Amino acid sequence: MTYDGRMSEPKPGPSLRAIPEGDNRERLICADCGYILYDNPKIVVGSVARWGDKILLCRRAIDPRRGFWTLPAGYLELNEATSAGAQREALEEANARIEIEALLAVYDIPRLSQVQLVYRARLVDDRIAPGAESLEVGLFGWDEIPWADIAFPSVRWALHHEREAQASGDLSAHIGLPPGLPPDPTQPQGL
Amino acid sequence: MTYDGRMSEPKPGPSLRAIPEGDNRERLICADCGYILYDNPKIVVGSVARWGDKILLCRRAIDPRRGFWTLPAGYLELNEATSAGAQREALEEANARIEIEALLAVYDIPRLSQVQLVYRARLVDDRIAPGAESLEVGLFGWDEIPWADIAFPSVRWALHHEREAQASGDLSAHIGLPPGLPPDPTQPQGL
Repeated sequence: MTYDGRMSEPKPGPSLRAIPEGDNRERLICADCGYILYDNPKIVVGSVARWGDKILLCRRAIDPRRGFWTLPAGYLELNEATSAGAQREALEEANARIEIEALLAVYDIPRLSQVQLVYRARLVDDRIAPGAESLEVGLFGWDEIPWADIAFPSVRWALHHEREAQASGDLSAHIGLPPGLPPDPTQPQGL
Repeated sequence: MTYDGRMSEPKPGPSLRAIPEGDNRERLICADCGYILYDNPKIVVGSVARWGDKILLCRRAIDPRRGFWTLPAGYLELNEATSAGAQREALEEANARIEIEALLAVYDIPRLSQVQLVYRARLVDDRIAPGAESLEVGLFGWDEIPWADIAFPSVRWALHHEREAQASGDLSAHIGLPPGLPPDPTQPQGL
């Protein structure tokens, strides 16, 4: 089909709550056609990408948390490997080419229906530039990181996990939160 | 809303392919109401649950792979912690109460748009019984596992990862496949 412009305006879609036959949970159902939406938690993929001892951060051009700093990260697409998704997000948000090294951390955030997979990565070169979703991008040493202006708790978690991995030489993936960081983020969004 | 029986018959829902305005990928759109479906990869959660040196397996009562043996596993629900999802699946499929110990493995299966998180767990007791999706359930020593009748490649991967963890004492999570096992499963389904 060719794209029909009329479809660009927001539609309610599945918005009635009911338990379908043979199921045991409420699902959203479309009032127009009866379609049952089986909504599922989402996978967020991102990276802590290093250039020497500096780390790539992006200042968000979009809500939520516009103007705050984040790691390049976003929703995994269908049929996309998680490492490929992390590379795509670095390219889209910072025009950055990264080489994936290993899985850094898995963050399980049921409140947001998100599982986040964050990779350790190396920038291939230091040519970075803001993509459509970034106001600016930068490379930061640990002491230069704008800690007061970090967009999401999981960005702090991942930065601390990377710091620990560097310090200890233990590069196995971390599950859950680094010690001393808040387990229950006060902000409403994830990575 | 109360449940409307007419909605139990399958509906096409979003089934036209087009690139919405401001997007860069084809999405499925509902021909009736114009709703745009942003479909995402799914998270599968499961467990390798031990009772002494035996492991819990379930013989599938449903397609795909009806009659074959699998680990208790299924799709993570909204607002559900991944470990809670693994516990729920063990209860639903084998009436088994399990205690989660640690994340055993993360399997990234882009061909199926799945990320699988498999936990190491311990059965609280050995009272198990088939749930609605299982023909039978059982506890198997390593040499008793019905290797020829395993439902999905990732079940084999997880069993081997658990075996390695027991042998080496290294209980950190495994990412990817154990050595010597096929990286590209020939069967069309995941865990």
